[in-house]
Amino acid sequence: MGVAVSEQSGARGGGEERLDEQHLPQDPHARSPDPYPDHLRLEVEEYLEALRFSDEPMTAGLEEAMRYSLLAPGKRVRPVLALATARAVGLAPRSVLPLAGAIEMIHTYSLIHDDLPAMDDDDLRRGRPTCHVAYGQDVAILAGDGLYAEAFHHLLSRQESEPERVLAAAAELAGATGVSGMVGGQYADVREQAPAGPAGVRRLHELKTGRLVGASIVCVLLLAAVDGPATMALRRFAAELGVLFQIVDDILDVIGTDQALGKPRGSDERHGKRTYVSEFGIDRAKELAAESHRTAREALAQGGPPATARAELEQLTDFIYTRTS
Amino acid sequence: MGVAVSEQSGARGGGEERLDEQHLPQDPHARSPDPYPDHLRLEVEEYLEALRFSDEPMTAGLEEAMRYSLLAPGKRVRPVLALATARAVGLAPRSVLPLAGAIEMIHTYSLIHDDLPAMDDDDLRRGRPTCHVAYGQDVAILAGDGLYAEAFHHLLSRQESEPERVLAAAAELAGATGVSGMVGGQYADVREQAPAGPAGVRRLHELKTGRLVGASIVCVLLLAAVDGPATMALRRFAAELGVLFQIVDDILDVIGTDQALGKPRGSDERHGKRTYVSEFGIDRAKELAAESHRTAREALAQGGPPATARAELEQLTDFIYTRTS
Repeated sequence: MGVAVSEQSGARGGGEERLDEQHLPQDPHARSPDPYPDHLRLEVEEYLEALRFSDEPMTAGLEEAMRYSLLAPGKRVRPVLALATARAVGLAPRSVLPLAGAIEMIHTYSLIHDDLPAMDDDDLRRGRPTCHVAYGQDVAILAGDGLYAEAFHHLLSRQESEPERVLAAAAELAGATGVSGMVGGQYADVREQAPAGPAGVRRLHELKTGRLVGASIVCVLLLAAVDGPATMALRRFAAELGVLFQIVDDILDVIGTDQALGKPRGSDERHGKRTYVSEFGIDRAKELAAESHRTAREALAQGGPPATARAELEQLTDFIYTRTS
Repeated sequence: MGVAVSEQSGARGGGEERLDEQHLPQDPHARSPDPYPDHLRLEVEEYLEALRFSDEPMTAGLEEAMRYSLLAPGKRVRPVLALATARAVGLAPRSVLPLAGAIEMIHTYSLIHDDLPAMDDDDLRRGRPTCHVAYGQDVAILAGDGLYAEAFHHLLSRQESEPERVLAAAAELAGATGVSGMVGGQYADVREQAPAGPAGVRRLHELKTGRLVGASIVCVLLLAAVDGPATMALRRFAAELGVLFQIVDDILDVIGTDQALGKPRGSDERHGKRTYVSEFGIDRAKELAAESHRTAREALAQGGPPATARAELEQLTDFIYTRTS
């Protein structure tokens, strides 16, 4: 807990003096996390709460299980990222709510399946019994499958934009969650298929976590059809944010508290998972988090959105770095 | 096996004399099935065989499991239906191969998940050990998830047509496999949630099987953007074909052979499933199949495609009725 991350970042930073002073304390996880764009989170939660998938009594129990997991308390980092990105590129955040909702449904489905006894076998998630503990394994498998299907159904039928832009965003989201994305990463994780060494850990997490976090940004760029240097910088930002997210996740699994995490601490080690901490040790992992945070912030600053338009993305970047859960 | 289905159909038919004479023997399952459009099946198989999802060594084992199930021998009824529908509405069958491939990937994913120990717990499928028997439950869950993701990725990025048509087809496919479709039907089945009585059984199967079979036709109509009375008749055909498919499935689970089915006969009864046979008895189920076959054929005849263009759809309809596996 006492690793002086700020020294590292101070030494290599420079481009963002205000940031180094205000946002990088001795240990980012030893204090309250940075402020969060809660107004966007509230918009997402209201939207998710209002989602219904069918009014058929026969499937009401399935929908209950899907909503149980979908509406469990969470920061909604991915959909909030989508809304903040919309603002950064000049769209109204509300205009990408169907995409944002789809992304959160997909994230929830992945948690449900990852928690299954045949996978990570976790009983607790977001502070509640996991879906299969509450509803049984059969229903949990189907609740995940149903959320994935309804995510695409929702995105493809509700997201307003030019059809070719919606197509491009949906294709990106499908790719980010397939074999070269989330599902492939989860496979490599549970079957220990990542190559040895740091590059292997990084690539594993790029697939498992990074691509969906990144897609939360990239899909909005595709919907907005923004192009040119601004897009390149925001794509770099998206990729780096995925890395930062995972490094901090790995650190929190070691130093976080069960209560804050909403699940038992140390589950990575119990499952023999390869993480940034297992690969680099806790101290170097913290340094890497600081470096990644700085890289993400720099990409964002180069990205072109005016300072006011990128404020929420900056907040999110800092929050992802300093979060405690 | 000795129920005189043809008397029923003979008495009520009339519109399709040739059909009654040539295609409805005493018991359709007591003889060889009708001819199958194997040239379309071969196009589908060649296409599926060539699909690759990633060249990353880390996920090669996942891709192997996906291909193990995807390439297991099968009639490919759903993708072949899509190709035959394309011909019926004036498109080149090859032009809808990306859609057809996506549909078969989704069908395969549903088989993998349905076979899991927490679901139907089946060890044999298409004459081979099921995916979880061959690769483990964790990999089987992910192989199913991966096939669903790659199905949409493939359809959204490879299917040529106007973007708004691809969007409409993909939205239909997502809806047909969600809570008001395949996944909802499977839930109602495993958790015995269908309402009592014949309407309940019919609705259950409409969701579980009917909507994906129907989508194999309807998605092509959406891609082709055909409209008007022809579409209405083909949509009726699509819905009825889904019903026919399931009634025959239920009958074959009772009277088929393990070898032909590629899985143990009688699994519905062992699992206490509600089927057309459990609800109506074998004799009445056969009558219902004959009625459904006739209704489907009539809808097709009214559908407007010229006789030469609809020949493959007629073949498929007869095959689905008379198949032995």
